[in-house]
Amino acid sequence: MKKFKIIMLLMTCALFLSACGKSDSGKKSKENSSNTQLIGQTSNKYYQGVIKDGHYQTSKSRGVSVQQNDNQLNLKSFENGLLNISKSHFSTDKYIFQEGQYINTSTTEKWLGRKTKKNPEGLNPTGKDSKVPIYLQQIDEQDFMTQQNNSLKISGMTIGVGINSVYYYRKEAYGAIYQKKLTNSEIKEQGKQIGNIILQRLRKNKDLKNIPIVIALYKQAPNDSLVGGNFFAYSVNNDGANKVSSWQKMNIKNEVLPSQSSKTNNNDEDAFDNFKSQVQNFFPNLSGITAQAHYVDGKLSGMHVNITTQFYGESEIISFTQYVETQAEKYLPTGIPIDISISSTEGMQSFLSRSSSSKDFYSHVFSSY
Amino acid sequence: MKKFKIIMLLMTCALFLSACGKSDSGKKSKENSSNTQLIGQTSNKYYQGVIKDGHYQTSKSRGVSVQQNDNQLNLKSFENGLLNISKSHFSTDKYIFQEGQYINTSTTEKWLGRKTKKNPEGLNPTGKDSKVPIYLQQIDEQDFMTQQNNSLKISGMTIGVGINSVYYYRKEAYGAIYQKKLTNSEIKEQGKQIGNIILQRLRKNKDLKNIPIVIALYKQAPNDSLVGGNFFAYSVNNDGANKVSSWQKMNIKNEVLPSQSSKTNNNDEDAFDNFKSQVQNFFPNLSGITAQAHYVDGKLSGMHVNITTQFYGESEIISFTQYVETQAEKYLPTGIPIDISISSTEGMQSFLSRSSSSKDFYSHVFSSY
Repeated sequence: MKKFKIIMLLMTCALFLSACGKSDSGKKSKENSSNTQLIGQTSNKYYQGVIKDGHYQTSKSRGVSVQQNDNQLNLKSFENGLLNISKSHFSTDKYIFQEGQYINTSTTEKWLGRKTKKNPEGLNPTGKDSKVPIYLQQIDEQDFMTQQNNSLKISGMTIGVGINSVYYYRKEAYGAIYQKKLTNSEIKEQGKQIGNIILQRLRKNKDLKNIPIVIALYKQAPNDSLVGGNFFAYSVNNDGANKVSSWQKMNIKNEVLPSQSSKTNNNDEDAFDNFKSQVQNFFPNLSGITAQAHYVDGKLSGMHVNITTQFYGESEIISFTQYVETQAEKYLPTGIPIDISISSTEGMQSFLSRSSSSKDFYSHVFSSY
Repeated sequence: MKKFKIIMLLMTCALFLSACGKSDSGKKSKENSSNTQLIGQTSNKYYQGVIKDGHYQTSKSRGVSVQQNDNQLNLKSFENGLLNISKSHFSTDKYIFQEGQYINTSTTEKWLGRKTKKNPEGLNPTGKDSKVPIYLQQIDEQDFMTQQNNSLKISGMTIGVGINSVYYYRKEAYGAIYQKKLTNSEIKEQGKQIGNIILQRLRKNKDLKNIPIVIALYKQAPNDSLVGGNFFAYSVNNDGANKVSSWQKMNIKNEVLPSQSSKTNNNDEDAFDNFKSQVQNFFPNLSGITAQAHYVDGKLSGMHVNITTQFYGESEIISFTQYVETQAEKYLPTGIPIDISISSTEGMQSFLSRSSSSKDFYSHVFSSY
């Protein structure tokens, strides 16, 4: 994986960059407070990040998203999916990643609210909670930087727009929670409208006037889902475009196995069922085995398997982990990345991982001295 | 690591063994219930395990140990340490591992109790709780099997004997908990005596009459310790020896870093402190960084670092993990196995691991679809 070469390369270029951001003058600041430092990239799977004033620059809007998501799986899946979209437009070799710094907390709060007299910027429709749904549930901004004259310059941006698939509401304070399923056409329509408005607003900032801005639309999973939602469309907006000219469809599905409902692919389900029944008999009391299956264009392209056990001993977990590995190699599909984590109430006990190109699983048993 | 070769080798010998254990007659049982199957060994770091009657043969005595340990770290550390001792006497290439099947639950309970009229087998001294300490706190048995005439035969055993370093007791039911520190010479003396009696008792079983039995003595860590205790002596008893002829001293220490008290090695502490202060500044609110340092013969020989963060975003965790990797490569000692786990209240977020022979860390960020 040329990992060592990359690290060496980056070690040598992990130089301290002086004053960047607002002041583009390139003058060397004497204050430590304007120092920007790059984090060594340890694999080109990942972006390099930015340390500023001695700290990592955390996202300005993320705290809001955390509160907004009753199902935390929507949060991880949204951030993770958006990063994958970003990687196909802003290469990890060329761009430096910066957590969203343009849409700040109070802006995010306003945008996620309903449009009212007091909140004219609200991107959700005016109206009564019980009648008019909240469509926009979360926003994520990712900034892509390049080095110019010893400073970092914003050179690209990706915006994720999370639209509800189910609208949860109360008719009175502390009352029962009602839900309304939103149709796919509503979700698409609203996502595109909101994405367009966000693009227009971002273009008003002179830093963002001419950079490529990718807008990606995400359909939130219901609150009781064991897997996150999925991105369903994106648009690339170059040359200062103020309006999205076209949306590209994305065919992504995330499913939970074993599933009661209709499946994208029966063979995958069967393979998992075989694996599951082999593994489930190992211990007298194994609590559960589920998987998240990730489909792109109808093809399985990734799998996360979660196995929950009681608290067994170190040697029992070692044997179990070896057994799971042999069964995974026998039954689970090859050519896709697979993670398998084995947990008890005490936390993760061991885990296995195989990349799409690898033949063998990497396995690790967590231990203690 | 010859992993693939080993797996191939073992795949081919993962044959079904018929009737073993009590009946050595070698007759082919038709019942599925007496079928023994070997688990493929995925690395020679680990033993092959045994599946019997479709299930893994769990330990007969372990449940008792779980209840006996207020500090669960003593349990993991004890099991893990005992496995390491076993490996140096019963090679993972030659022996098959079986969870302890000879000392069963009720025997363990009796042995861990005080010696009384009703419990003549008790290995703890007769006496009042507030006056006479409980020395023996836990027992672990590990069985090492070889294949003979298509069945598995016990060919070696390791017994771990956990002796308290602090005795906790109440003067009255539900009363305050008092503690009494036990001296090292008491701990040694008691451990050796108890180990001797266990050896004698095991030799009475005809299966165990002539096999090598390794007895290892462990000093339990106090209940408030952030690291487990340590093994301090072992004896190898060959040729049906009924009495331990000599004990080998083991110089093992497990410490927590950063430490307030005296340290085994100041350089290790300094290296860790440098790493810690580099990493701690990364996020505005990083909760804590501690490490378990494992010393053998005064030399650092392993380290587990635990980093606790708030719940940060996927991209924040990726950047942090890359940063931790660069700092660990810069500051932490090489040539020893190092695990670093990064957790939030939501569980493990990412982890890094480097073996003693490896230059680079393996790193994994846990994600969700």
